[in-house]
Amino acid sequence: MTQKAQNTKIRHALTVKRDEDFAQWYQQVISEAEMAEESGVRGCMVIKPWGYGIWERIQKIMDARIKDAGVDNCYFPLFIPLSYFSKEADHVEGFAKEMAVVTHHRLIADGKGGLVPDPEAKLEEPLIVRPTSETVIGAAMARWVQSWRDLPLMVNQWANVVRWEMRTRMFLRTSEFLWQEGHTAHADRDDAMSETLRALEMYRDFAENVLAMPVIAGEKPENERFPGAVATYSIEAMMQDGKALQAGTSHYLGTGFAEAAGIRYQDKEGQQALAHTTSWGVSTRMIGGVIMTHGDDDGLRVPPAIAPHQIIILPMLRDDEGDAALLAYCEELRRDLAKLDVMREPVRVLLDKRPGKATQKRWAWVKKGAPIILEIGGRDAAGGMVSALRRDRIWREDGKTNFAPMERDAFIAAATAELESIQASLHAEATVRRDANIVRGITTLDGLAQHFSDDARYPGWVEMAWSRPTGAALDKVVEQLKALKLTIRNTPQHGPAIEGTCPFTGAPAVERIYVARAY
Amino acid sequence: MTQKAQNTKIRHALTVKRDEDFAQWYQQVISEAEMAEESGVRGCMVIKPWGYGIWERIQKIMDARIKDAGVDNCYFPLFIPLSYFSKEADHVEGFAKEMAVVTHHRLIADGKGGLVPDPEAKLEEPLIVRPTSETVIGAAMARWVQSWRDLPLMVNQWANVVRWEMRTRMFLRTSEFLWQEGHTAHADRDDAMSETLRALEMYRDFAENVLAMPVIAGEKPENERFPGAVATYSIEAMMQDGKALQAGTSHYLGTGFAEAAGIRYQDKEGQQALAHTTSWGVSTRMIGGVIMTHGDDDGLRVPPAIAPHQIIILPMLRDDEGDAALLAYCEELRRDLAKLDVMREPVRVLLDKRPGKATQKRWAWVKKGAPIILEIGGRDAAGGMVSALRRDRIWREDGKTNFAPMERDAFIAAATAELESIQASLHAEATVRRDANIVRGITTLDGLAQHFSDDARYPGWVEMAWSRPTGAALDKVVEQLKALKLTIRNTPQHGPAIEGTCPFTGAPAVERIYVARAY
Repeated sequence: MTQKAQNTKIRHALTVKRDEDFAQWYQQVISEAEMAEESGVRGCMVIKPWGYGIWERIQKIMDARIKDAGVDNCYFPLFIPLSYFSKEADHVEGFAKEMAVVTHHRLIADGKGGLVPDPEAKLEEPLIVRPTSETVIGAAMARWVQSWRDLPLMVNQWANVVRWEMRTRMFLRTSEFLWQEGHTAHADRDDAMSETLRALEMYRDFAENVLAMPVIAGEKPENERFPGAVATYSIEAMMQDGKALQAGTSHYLGTGFAEAAGIRYQDKEGQQALAHTTSWGVSTRMIGGVIMTHGDDDGLRVPPAIAPHQIIILPMLRDDEGDAALLAYCEELRRDLAKLDVMREPVRVLLDKRPGKATQKRWAWVKKGAPIILEIGGRDAAGGMVSALRRDRIWREDGKTNFAPMERDAFIAAATAELESIQASLHAEATVRRDANIVRGITTLDGLAQHFSDDARYPGWVEMAWSRPTGAALDKVVEQLKALKLTIRNTPQHGPAIEGTCPFTGAPAVERIYVARAY
Repeated sequence: MTQKAQNTKIRHALTVKRDEDFAQWYQQVISEAEMAEESGVRGCMVIKPWGYGIWERIQKIMDARIKDAGVDNCYFPLFIPLSYFSKEADHVEGFAKEMAVVTHHRLIADGKGGLVPDPEAKLEEPLIVRPTSETVIGAAMARWVQSWRDLPLMVNQWANVVRWEMRTRMFLRTSEFLWQEGHTAHADRDDAMSETLRALEMYRDFAENVLAMPVIAGEKPENERFPGAVATYSIEAMMQDGKALQAGTSHYLGTGFAEAAGIRYQDKEGQQALAHTTSWGVSTRMIGGVIMTHGDDDGLRVPPAIAPHQIIILPMLRDDEGDAALLAYCEELRRDLAKLDVMREPVRVLLDKRPGKATQKRWAWVKKGAPIILEIGGRDAAGGMVSALRRDRIWREDGKTNFAPMERDAFIAAATAELESIQASLHAEATVRRDANIVRGITTLDGLAQHFSDDARYPGWVEMAWSRPTGAALDKVVEQLKALKLTIRNTPQHGPAIEGTCPFTGAPAVERIYVARAY
């Protein structure tokens, strides 16, 4: 954890602090912010309104960017016949292990008051619940692509997918999760690669400017490629415990999937050619990244761009005759705020009139991380005032909450700038922390081991030069790192020229990598 | 089919006419409008961009209405443990038959180059792919509801569901389909019933004013209730072949589901009480209803409210030096049209610059049913003109397409009114047809049989008075109707007082029903 002057007078809203038990803190944020919960169904979570509202914001903004790139939304089947799945050998190898398999299509009474799968209704060919849709979309593309005029063919779907996970963690790794998967087919490598990198850049920009989450975009090492891919790129974010989170991937698939599915086209010279395909996706995992990037010891802090409600108005109701005037004042304030635009959309403002104590409701919204909370009492209403709390700076020096009384018109005039300022300050805070915790200058495996030894509570990431080994040489590096519980995250797209020797192979270094513990 | 003067000079875009083979025509519309296709996965379709774009429009508008009603979106697991499903006896009875059952979570090589479910990875308890989510949402509600203050609890999810179907038909009946399912819990019957009827009215209004599809809202007879429901309401639309389509349902579930799931609350007097629950849903089936309500012998006609693109601009490119000026003119036109608002949203206008002959592209858009198509040649551009075709009146008396040349500014000034006029005219046309094909005055079973005898090509619906029999008496009526391939659709919510004798039971009539063939 980055060190801050601890103010012992502050009584934080959560009982677990980030620097005491990060994993436990993460679970508490999700629970106290009412984002999600265990469902009772193994490995599957229930996403509650506040968590789903954040996902809806992510979907809305990402979907517009996907459409702007000329990609069409479609919907493909949940089930993939087993035989489809066997076509691309590397792909099967990578995915075949843990998937939900549908074997029957009917239940029947077991004679003891229960139900069992009907043996008479066994499927001739088992169906796999899609872990990803390359195979079934490839089959459709093979039908749709005839000539070079049909290319590029670019589709996307928003869908649920299932990968049977043994150890699950809400938002980060669940058996069922929600995502978008883009799939494109192109005439040649260059066009496919430029789409792969366009999607990567779309994700990088989205993470930075919508999620306020700084990321490093780059290529994954060979051993971390998507099963069957020629190249895999990722965006990697640093969580507050120093671990890396892969928050989005984009794959150049070469012609392997096209060959397996039969995506062939007649080129301008009349020859048959294989298409080059790509796929790219982000998922509800991003929400886990937002929590671990922006959460603090009082709960979540949601960047205004993805906050389901950006401003909460909390009338301090007293169950007396003064409430009517107070509510009228709050409703007019709500209406005036809702007329404003921020980040090119109307301001999302909620007047929370539900029963309950105002203080309790305030802390519920603090834990949820609503960007601005307005508390308004009868005297504020009479005096044309509001009392405003910015979620990114809720504590004063003296340990009291940082509510600022101000005239309502002054608040309205400043509201959109305040929201933009919160968005920027969350991004800046995370960027400073990330940059302060990337270590450079380690040139040996021993140095790496020492840096990540148990005593180092906050090791962050290590940027190293390396020689980009492949095959067995890479496997050896991966094993060495695995013994230290470390992984190679990616090779950044940009950066200064490299020199020196690869600490793993002894060969001359050709590029940089980030080494880190990871989710 | 309603009779129109057939103009033999007209060469329609489809090869199958509605009044020749309605089922075949339906498939051809879906295929030629590029809405969906068979996926190669049994009973599952691929929804292509134009079909999915219509679904996105439906989602967007319906979602806003659901949120306006105070319902929160959530997401619940795809899988439901078998034991959950056994809790509500009637519900099991109704659904247990045909469902996708997950029995394994891993594949393993079969030693012959293929894959099989790994016997070591057999689930202790099979998982059902949700056919609907009452049981799993009920379990969540039992956790969330403690006191009367937590009620009403109103959630909704947009999700895929699976009901194993033996005979499938795209959009109308597929094994996997997309829908929204609203689930609410209330303190008492009155509150739950008023939510049930609110959802029904939301669907009725949506069908009429968004889909331009006239419907009759009413209660289903006992035998057609959702498994476990106390009362089921539906909206019923008349397709152009006279059959009825159930296009949305809303259920009052009483306390049965609450009892099975344990949704109990402490009431204001401190007593434990069972919640009263509801559920309501509409699905991609609505798109089938739109096709069979508005399609004609030239393809689909999409109501402007749900058209992914409302206005198509087709430049008549000639691959010469004049194209640049023509494209610039079209782009400026596109920009000006996109500034307009219609039905409280920006006009959706597409400049179709893809390669290909303008006439071919025109007919592709006609078949897709884009509301307005503009063809623009070099001379139009030079003269500040456009040539506009309204999809709801594409043929002139002489059998030629009904393009109207007009000044661009005049077109822009009239564009939103034209779109509203198309929306209204599609609704009016369907309403006239529906009302003309509801027959009244049949008072005997023989009369009914005769009306629906084979010779009657377009029997439509029959409105009858009946005594609302239940139990065995109802079963007998259902059997009699089944022999005539007929079903009871619903009892309309509103209408004049009833008198006379029930033709089925001989008892005094108490309400009206619609009898029809149905999808």
